Amino acid sequence: MSDQKAIYQQIADDIEEQIVSGALQSGDRIQSEREMSLELGVNRMTVRRAFNVLVERGLIDRRHGGGTYVTSPRIERKAGELFPFTLGIQKLGMEPGAEIISFEEVSADESIASVLALPIGAPVFYIYRVRTANEEPVVLEQFFVSADKFPNFDEHDHDKFSGYAIMDEAYGVKVVRAEQSLEPVIATTYEAELLGIHQGAPLMLERRLSFDEFGRPVEYGKDLYRGDKFKFVTQDAKLTLTWQ
Amino acid sequence: MSDQKAIYQQIADDIEEQIVSGALQSGDRIQSEREMSLELGVNRMTVRRAFNVLVERGLIDRRHGGGTYVTSPRIERKAGELFPFTLGIQKLGMEPGAEIISFEEVSADESIASVLALPIGAPVFYIYRVRTANEEPVVLEQFFVSADKFPNFDEHDHDKFSGYAIMDEAYGVKVVRAEQSLEPVIATTYEAELLGIHQGAPLMLERRLSFDEFGRPVEYGKDLYRGDKFKFVTQDAKLTLTWQ
Repeated sequence: MSDQKAIYQQIADDIEEQIVSGALQSGDRIQSEREMSLELGVNRMTVRRAFNVLVERGLIDRRHGGGTYVTSPRIERKAGELFPFTLGIQKLGMEPGAEIISFEEVSADESIASVLALPIGAPVFYIYRVRTANEEPVVLEQFFVSADKFPNFDEHDHDKFSGYAIMDEAYGVKVVRAEQSLEPVIATTYEAELLGIHQGAPLMLERRLSFDEFGRPVEYGKDLYRGDKFKFVTQDAKLTLTWQ
Repeated sequence: MSDQKAIYQQIADDIEEQIVSGALQSGDRIQSEREMSLELGVNRMTVRRAFNVLVERGLIDRRHGGGTYVTSPRIERKAGELFPFTLGIQKLGMEPGAEIISFEEVSADESIASVLALPIGAPVFYIYRVRTANEEPVVLEQFFVSADKFPNFDEHDHDKFSGYAIMDEAYGVKVVRAEQSLEPVIATTYEAELLGIHQGAPLMLERRLSFDEFGRPVEYGKDLYRGDKFKFVTQDAKLTLTWQ
């Protein structure tokens, strides 16, 4: 490895910057591999490797019949806020949907009991759904709530309303805050099939423990967001560590 | 695909919860594939697939000579704060380090000029480094700063001090806030080699535009964090979208 950045990585990073900065916009056609290899004076395979990186990152798309185009920009989600999917997607001007894989009452095992502050074996609802935006699968959503706190939780219209709205309006439980964590992971074969992507594609795993206004844990969730569809933003990150 | 979660995915998720909740701790040996397949009454290949998912997610590790163990917990970084690497790693009780791949003065292209509010062609320093914690590569760091604002920026001891500390103490430029975004991506062959991981491993891409106290852009950065080493946390995510 040279002590300069590899050429294909450099080309990929340059095109990425043009897309991120807006110099290249969604739907723009980018130069062909041949044109770019001539212009940059590099091997065509090098340009292909760079394009492959950008396809993997979901920034460009090769279309059948030729041509390589800049994809749609990612949906921006605030990293430091709760994102009720149904409502969030509606506010973004898209149509939210849900396909239930599993919605069942189970007994809380040691870990679920511990995070939700329930006795081991207490009844909990476990919900596992594919969430769609304009009919395209974009998030795999899993969460647990106490079945004693939310009796008949499965009888509400979860396709139409955000879980938090149902908790509030039907049970008087107001979720006000959450502890969240974000980790990049890759899709398993199973997850990939549900999301219509390929095994190994990048996903954002968000774990979440939400609390009501009395500080009681309400819901433990684990969502997988398609990496090619979302980014998580912070508008006002502060510098709190200091060297003085 | 059945409408229940696939068995291997279920087993992987259950073990993951035991690790995340602390029921299984770093360094704990977990049951062998054979033991677990007997206990759960499932095919050994199913257990192997579940273990493969957990290895990919960096939660367990197969050791030479046998045995599968829970790995070390991830370093927690606050998603909504700036993370000056040198200082941040020190405060976590580890030894920070840097290996420079590239540290050069270049001309700002259209996108860099635009984000840093410089004329196109203005001189900028471009820094590309592997950052280490206790000598292990954990982050690939890239950033751009104006060379007019930070003359001789390359002559400071960047191995020992945080970039923000140098900007403050040698140039009187105080970075106070940033716009940041987080996206899950997978490592290219080149990035994987630098980080000592395998191509396709999950990384967190953090883009960052930082500002001084007068609201002027100071630095544009693009860091890649190893997904098996870090997680990004928010302690107090609020619900701001409402349905009423």
